[in-house]
Amino acid sequence: MSIPVTVVGIGKIARDQHLPAIAGNPDFHLAAAVSRHGTVEGVPNFTDFDRFLAEGPAGPVALCTPPSVRLEMALKTIAAGRDLLIEKPPAATLGEIETISAAARDAGVVLFATWHSRFAPAVAPARAWIAERKVERVTITWKEDVRRWHPGQAWIWQPGGFGVFDPGINALSILTEILPGAIHVGAATLEVPQNCATPIAAQLAMTARGTVPVAAAFDWRHEGVQTWDIEVEASGQRLTLGMGGAQMAIDGTPVDLPAEAEYPEIYRHFARLVAARESDADFAPLRLCADAFLVGRQVAVAPFTE
Amino acid sequence: MSIPVTVVGIGKIARDQHLPAIAGNPDFHLAAAVSRHGTVEGVPNFTDFDRFLAEGPAGPVALCTPPSVRLEMALKTIAAGRDLLIEKPPAATLGEIETISAAARDAGVVLFATWHSRFAPAVAPARAWIAERKVERVTITWKEDVRRWHPGQAWIWQPGGFGVFDPGINALSILTEILPGAIHVGAATLEVPQNCATPIAAQLAMTARGTVPVAAAFDWRHEGVQTWDIEVEASGQRLTLGMGGAQMAIDGTPVDLPAEAEYPEIYRHFARLVAARESDADFAPLRLCADAFLVGRQVAVAPFTE
Repeated sequence: MSIPVTVVGIGKIARDQHLPAIAGNPDFHLAAAVSRHGTVEGVPNFTDFDRFLAEGPAGPVALCTPPSVRLEMALKTIAAGRDLLIEKPPAATLGEIETISAAARDAGVVLFATWHSRFAPAVAPARAWIAERKVERVTITWKEDVRRWHPGQAWIWQPGGFGVFDPGINALSILTEILPGAIHVGAATLEVPQNCATPIAAQLAMTARGTVPVAAAFDWRHEGVQTWDIEVEASGQRLTLGMGGAQMAIDGTPVDLPAEAEYPEIYRHFARLVAARESDADFAPLRLCADAFLVGRQVAVAPFTE
Repeated sequence: MSIPVTVVGIGKIARDQHLPAIAGNPDFHLAAAVSRHGTVEGVPNFTDFDRFLAEGPAGPVALCTPPSVRLEMALKTIAAGRDLLIEKPPAATLGEIETISAAARDAGVVLFATWHSRFAPAVAPARAWIAERKVERVTITWKEDVRRWHPGQAWIWQPGGFGVFDPGINALSILTEILPGAIHVGAATLEVPQNCATPIAAQLAMTARGTVPVAAAFDWRHEGVQTWDIEVEASGQRLTLGMGGAQMAIDGTPVDLPAEAEYPEIYRHFARLVAARESDADFAPLRLCADAFLVGRQVAVAPFTE
C-alpha cells in the first residue's frame, strides 16, 4: 500500500525535487501540502501546521522549511507519532538536531535527516574506490552563483542561514560519506559581506584520518562554469567527482555512472527506513560546519546585492 | 597507594590550581611535569611530550595546554594506555573531543573532561533547588577584565582561541549542570575587536526546556567589580549564584556554603573515576559555544591592546 506523505514548506526545493520524487515513487503518494504561501493542486492544502497535524491526513511529514523553524515543527511531528524526513541542513544548530533525534528515538518514530548529495551516482563508487586505497589528499572546490541557485532567499543571509555553507554542506556530506572516520577542522576563513550575517565564501583546512590534508574552497560569487568538484589523491591515483557527484573520473578517464537521481533515491531510502522502522540521522556534516564557524576567522568583504 | 599524575603545560592554570590541588590530595602525587617553558621543582621535568610518554614515570596525565594542541597530545596519551584529565575547554572543536572520547572508550582509558565551575560550592545546591521548581527565566552575567585574568595569553585572540567564551563556557558549564535537558541557542551577537579573531563580548539568547528564556551576557572589557552571576527565576522565587558559583542567595538571602574548592573537588572526582574505571566527558557546554558561533552575528568593535 502506498504511504501518504505530506510536504511542509512549498518552496523551490519542494517544487523542484520533493513533489516530482514523490510523484515518481509508487511507494508514496502526496497526501497534503502545508505552506504559508505556496499551494499544490489536487491535494488538501493547509496554511497552519498545527491544524494539519490535528485535522489533516495521516502519514509521514517531509519538512522543507528553512532550518530556522525546523525544531518546533519537527518536535510537533514527532509528538504526533508521525515519521519525519528533513531537508538539509537538518536544523539550525547541533543542539536542535540532537533534541530532534532524541525525541524521535524516545517516540519510536523514524527520522531521516537527508543529505541529498550523498545519493549522487558517484558517491557509492567513490566510497568503494577509496576503501581500497591509501588517501593522500582531498581537495573540494564548490563554486556557484548564488543569484542563480538561491534567488530571493533572504534567509540564507540572516544569522543561522549558513550562507555559502548551505551548498558547502553538500560537499561536506559527500566527504564524510566517502571518507569514513574522523575529520577535523583545523582552520577556516569565512568571508562575510558587510551587509550580511553569513559567509559568501569560505576556505577550510581540515584533516582526515589524523594526517590527510583536506582543503575546501566554497564560493558563491562564481558566475562562470559552475563547479562542484571533489578530488581525491590516493595510492598514486586521482579520483575526481564532478558536478556534485553526478560525474566521476579516475586519472582523467570518465567512469560510466547511472543518471543523477538524488531525490528519487532519497524517497526510495525513506521507504526502506519506514518499512524497517529505522532512523538515519548523521550530524557529521553539520558538526563540521559548526566547527568551521567556531575556529574560523571572519573577514568582511564587499556588500552583496541581489 | 597514591596515584602518580603528570601535569602537561606548566602555565598559569597549572601553577594556580592543578599543582596545589594535587599537593593537597593524598590520592595523588606529582610524578613529572612536561612543558616547553615552565618547570616544577622536585620532580622530573620534560620538554618533549613524546619523550615523557616513552621514558617518564607511569600514571595519568593532566593536560593543561591550550585547546589548539589538545587533540594530538590526548590521542598519544590514550594510545599509551594512560588515563587522562583535560582542562576546559576540552578541545578546539566538537569533532576533536568526539575523536578523543571515542579513542578513550575504545582503549578502556578513563577520560575526565573537566569543567571546573561545575565544582563550585553553589552548583549542587542550585541544581537541587531548581529540580523542585518550575523555571521561568535564567539570566547570566559574566563580566571580567581580560587584562587581569589572561595576561599575555595571546592564543585566546587567535582563531579557535574562544575569546570571551573561554570564561563564558564556565557559565555554560554551570547552566547545563543546574538545568538538565536540552538548551538551544536561538541567536547570538559576537563582538570581535578589529585586530583579533575571537570575540571580546557576546550576548546569547537561548531557550531551555522548549520555552524558558536564557539570556547570557559575556564581556571581557569590564574593569569594575568582577561579575560572574547566574540568576534563576523559578516558581516565583529568585535564586542567585554569585562569584562563579562561590555564593548563593534565595530572594536576596544568602545561603551558607562551604568554601570554594573547585580544583580539589576535580581531583577528588578524578580519583573516584580512576578507581571506578569510568569516564566523565560532557560536551554540552562546548556544543553551546559552537552553536553560538554558528548562528551568531559577528560585529567589529574597537581594537584590543593589552
